[in-house]
Amino acid sequence: MTETTPTTNETKEQVITPWEVEAAPGGSVDYMKLVDQFGSTVISEELIARFEKVTGKRAHHFLRRGIFFSHRDLKEILDHHESGKKWFLYTGRGPSSGSLHFGHLLPFTFTKYLQDAFNVPLVVQMTNDEKFLWKDMTLEESIKFTHNNVKDIIALGFDIQKTFIFSNLEYIHHLYPNVLKIARCVNLNQIQNIFGFKESDAIGKFTFPPVQAAPCFPDSFPHIFPLNDPEIKNIRCLIPCAIDQDPYFRMTRDIAHRIGHQKPALIHSKFFPALQGHNTKMSASDTNSAVYLSDTPDQVKDKIKKHAFSGGGATKEEQEKNGADLSVDITYEYLTFMLEDDEQLKDIAHRYSTGKMMTGEIKQILIDLMNKIIIRHKEARAKITDEVLSTFMSIRKLNF
Amino acid sequence: MTETTPTTNETKEQVITPWEVEAAPGGSVDYMKLVDQFGSTVISEELIARFEKVTGKRAHHFLRRGIFFSHRDLKEILDHHESGKKWFLYTGRGPSSGSLHFGHLLPFTFTKYLQDAFNVPLVVQMTNDEKFLWKDMTLEESIKFTHNNVKDIIALGFDIQKTFIFSNLEYIHHLYPNVLKIARCVNLNQIQNIFGFKESDAIGKFTFPPVQAAPCFPDSFPHIFPLNDPEIKNIRCLIPCAIDQDPYFRMTRDIAHRIGHQKPALIHSKFFPALQGHNTKMSASDTNSAVYLSDTPDQVKDKIKKHAFSGGGATKEEQEKNGADLSVDITYEYLTFMLEDDEQLKDIAHRYSTGKMMTGEIKQILIDLMNKIIIRHKEARAKITDEVLSTFMSIRKLNF
Repeated sequence: MTETTPTTNETKEQVITPWEVEAAPGGSVDYMKLVDQFGSTVISEELIARFEKVTGKRAHHFLRRGIFFSHRDLKEILDHHESGKKWFLYTGRGPSSGSLHFGHLLPFTFTKYLQDAFNVPLVVQMTNDEKFLWKDMTLEESIKFTHNNVKDIIALGFDIQKTFIFSNLEYIHHLYPNVLKIARCVNLNQIQNIFGFKESDAIGKFTFPPVQAAPCFPDSFPHIFPLNDPEIKNIRCLIPCAIDQDPYFRMTRDIAHRIGHQKPALIHSKFFPALQGHNTKMSASDTNSAVYLSDTPDQVKDKIKKHAFSGGGATKEEQEKNGADLSVDITYEYLTFMLEDDEQLKDIAHRYSTGKMMTGEIKQILIDLMNKIIIRHKEARAKITDEVLSTFMSIRKLNF
Repeated sequence: MTETTPTTNETKEQVITPWEVEAAPGGSVDYMKLVDQFGSTVISEELIARFEKVTGKRAHHFLRRGIFFSHRDLKEILDHHESGKKWFLYTGRGPSSGSLHFGHLLPFTFTKYLQDAFNVPLVVQMTNDEKFLWKDMTLEESIKFTHNNVKDIIALGFDIQKTFIFSNLEYIHHLYPNVLKIARCVNLNQIQNIFGFKESDAIGKFTFPPVQAAPCFPDSFPHIFPLNDPEIKNIRCLIPCAIDQDPYFRMTRDIAHRIGHQKPALIHSKFFPALQGHNTKMSASDTNSAVYLSDTPDQVKDKIKKHAFSGGGATKEEQEKNGADLSVDITYEYLTFMLEDDEQLKDIAHRYSTGKMMTGEIKQILIDLMNKIIIRHKEARAKITDEVLSTFMSIRKLNF
């Protein structure tokens, strides 16, 4: 059965592709519609309970709060893990800016949590080839962004013994056998249906999906998964990613068995919304939409105060009278991503929505929290030497 | 101005693409029509004279006999050479069989002549990725064919100091920057127009043309042409190839200036016809159509006697009465490719066409000549050790 339903459609509804996140006019992204359209499964309370049982820990707040909300074959990965079989994590990043922003932290923070919880190897693909093909940048710029972004990623605390980070421009010859195998199984018609590319699009765009698909398969990493391992064809892969990346992996799941591999499993997050509101995501291409890990305390204060869309009253009086509409309030939304303490979050929600807390106050809480995270990140990043970066990106055995 | 006219058309005319050579029903390949359709230029007597002047030698019989018959910018290459500027030769082979056949010798024999005549570096691309995408073979088979074919190529006498042979599966990361630059400049519509691919074709086919185009540019080989050479953008490339490969390079010529490079120049050969006749070429996929460099003397005798299409009379009497029609006679045609002695060839043509020579006699001359070439080749090939092969395929400086 094919899972490759089109990602875009002709009506004026939301458009969610790996390159465009745009809610229906005037609305927020409708995630349930996406689940329906993509054919994935919502993560149930029962599955979260199972997750906690297998890991022996309380579920990450991204799971508890429905930020990672959808999946494919997550139950099978938990079964696989419980029976002691091998699997690995795969995530990635398209380096389109010098520094990561808070939106990028989402998949990486969750991936680090999964790596720690399950003690499995992780591969991280830096798609500098993709960014060159889609953006108006030179190869040299995409390479520079890659190295800067990798330092940011490493600074999040990934285990050097269990993590391999690679850039497509440097690693493509290792991926190429699987790229070719995949590219022999998918035809033009399927690529157009899945990704919505047009006749006037550069041929490079059509050639990229197999490159993002190849790391789903363990034999793309013979230094991590020796080719003579009789179990290599049974090694599974779990991909934590924002749901806009799903089309790549629907395509991959459709053809995995044809090249003798397991389907990759997925766990999908919602988007980290732009400062301006829920209708799109933070974008590295629009600096006013995002807070960067390289921003100064004043820049953070300025961006949140000026740009973070508020669901609070227009005046002190209105806010005291009606309270804030949390469902559109970006400051509150950001706190649900970043504030781990459930009780504190609940208290803020209560006071802000009932008018006992002013917009200025909640924004200050967020500013302080973001600046704390940024300072911690800058300290960690300062310790990432070029040598550490080289080690993470070197072809070597991992220990797991 | 675009040079990308479609390669195929809807009428029942000849179809010449990199994957199919089929004359119009009942006819031979119409080369003048191809020149017209592709927009290349016939090699004139004047250009051959210029060629002889620049090289200081009599032109190769492939040139004199119109076997290499068409070109793009060959005059400019001669000017470039005369003014002392750098250029290189680029040719290739798709390894689809364990051994080369006589058809494959055509571009390589001529390329070796050019390398000797001009003392320039040569790069040879082994497109094992292409063969995997188009043929029903495994990657392992395509790699095995590659190594066997490279030994055959080396045995033709290429200068180890001036020749770099690479396989796409091993060298793709070095080509990838130019592959991406090219793939960003050509859109789907153009690829479909040039190559005639269909919606049901594997996406891998659409992704291959930039891979065959990338070696036209000197910065794909920084070990041969250092990137810090201020003249690197002025280094030109000449491609000796059969005319069916022209679509790749029309595409490349169209976009070369957009990525800051010179257009590749071309010199096109006719096809080495199949034993069965002029309507198609020798094909490694049809063993009865071709004589291989690995064939035994008896196999050669058998193939020529049984399969070489004859323009001679059906009986001794008819041949004596009417003589042979040289224009359809494959044995005679093969001699025009292989017999260097103009006088001897002229004598054979005269006697055979006037009925003084029987089909059996001319076939015996060809059998003896082919077996002589095969024996010489087998002796040369036996001397090509794995070490020599490794050196030709290693990334190293060339001396030129």
